[in-house]
Amino acid sequence: VSRRSGRRRGTTTTPDAIRYAARAQFAQRDYRAVTVRGIARDAGVDAALVHHFFGTKEGVFADAILDVLRPDALLPPILEPGLDGVGERLTRAFIQLWDRPPTRDPMLAVLRSAVSHPDAAAALRAVVNQHLLGPVASSVPHPDRTLRAALAGSQLLGLAMERYLLRLEPLASLDEDALVARVGPTIQRYLAG
Amino acid sequence: VSRRSGRRRGTTTTPDAIRYAARAQFAQRDYRAVTVRGIARDAGVDAALVHHFFGTKEGVFADAILDVLRPDALLPPILEPGLDGVGERLTRAFIQLWDRPPTRDPMLAVLRSAVSHPDAAAALRAVVNQHLLGPVASSVPHPDRTLRAALAGSQLLGLAMERYLLRLEPLASLDEDALVARVGPTIQRYLAG
Repeated sequence: VSRRSGRRRGTTTTPDAIRYAARAQFAQRDYRAVTVRGIARDAGVDAALVHHFFGTKEGVFADAILDVLRPDALLPPILEPGLDGVGERLTRAFIQLWDRPPTRDPMLAVLRSAVSHPDAAAALRAVVNQHLLGPVASSVPHPDRTLRAALAGSQLLGLAMERYLLRLEPLASLDEDALVARVGPTIQRYLAG
Repeated sequence: VSRRSGRRRGTTTTPDAIRYAARAQFAQRDYRAVTVRGIARDAGVDAALVHHFFGTKEGVFADAILDVLRPDALLPPILEPGLDGVGERLTRAFIQLWDRPPTRDPMLAVLRSAVSHPDAAAALRAVVNQHLLGPVASSVPHPDRTLRAALAGSQLLGLAMERYLLRLEPLASLDEDALVARVGPTIQRYLAG
């Protein structure tokens, strides 16, 4: 997946123009209705350039997920201090991502696409495995580290579903600290227990 | 929500014919594309009868969820023995529901609808609150029982998302006993800890 290394201040690079168009399309339309041709048209570039930078539609979708999650910035402050307190740090960062509308809305769009379309689910699975669960698992000293990271991920994903999508009370209204106090210990036990 | 109390062996009641048609429609089409009129047509009845038995489209949807979950049969063997071991029993029953295609497939259809359509999410939320989390919370002796039940629900929902929808390994292939051994203690702590 192409990253934004070529970006210069004050200009919009072609990959960024494609990203911008793609994010709007994935947010507003059904996944099946989004096409590389349509993204290229909105970005004002030739479809061949979209393929050049991102490969397939699934590649554009995976890049859009990474562009929201920014795992390279998100994970080091959580993982580098070590296992002590990692459950609380991971839970808090995850809730903050979802509590902010600029990241919540595209993540809801990603979830909607993944739930309804196997291709989108495959793209999300690949990104989650490589860029989120992989690094988290690497910080776990137990041999079942991959399963432990997946279990932690399942608790956080279910929390997002209930709080932001089903809006189930009292979970939907609980403040960040109370939520971290409840869920953080579960994540800590999965990763380090 | 109407229940199947009037059912007689060997005959198909009008509510059952409507249920059958509704389940097929919700499984095969986008939630928005399902109409009371279309369900009535497939069931061979007048749309007024659908409204009579189930109210709105959301009412038909809620009934379809209950028809899959059967909480009246599901929950007593889990809750009546008391808090001891409730986490393991609840986790096992939930996994068995999702591991069997006849219940998994309609539940995936319900999740897809709820993720994409706020009306469907509201119907699912009402059913989950009244028929699943409500009874589970009633069995919890702590004053924060509603939050505890919601947290347990979030872990189970996230597990279903990762295992059956994203098919994330090694969670997707883990056998029932291993999964119960990992997740059961989390549910137990949320409810009774």
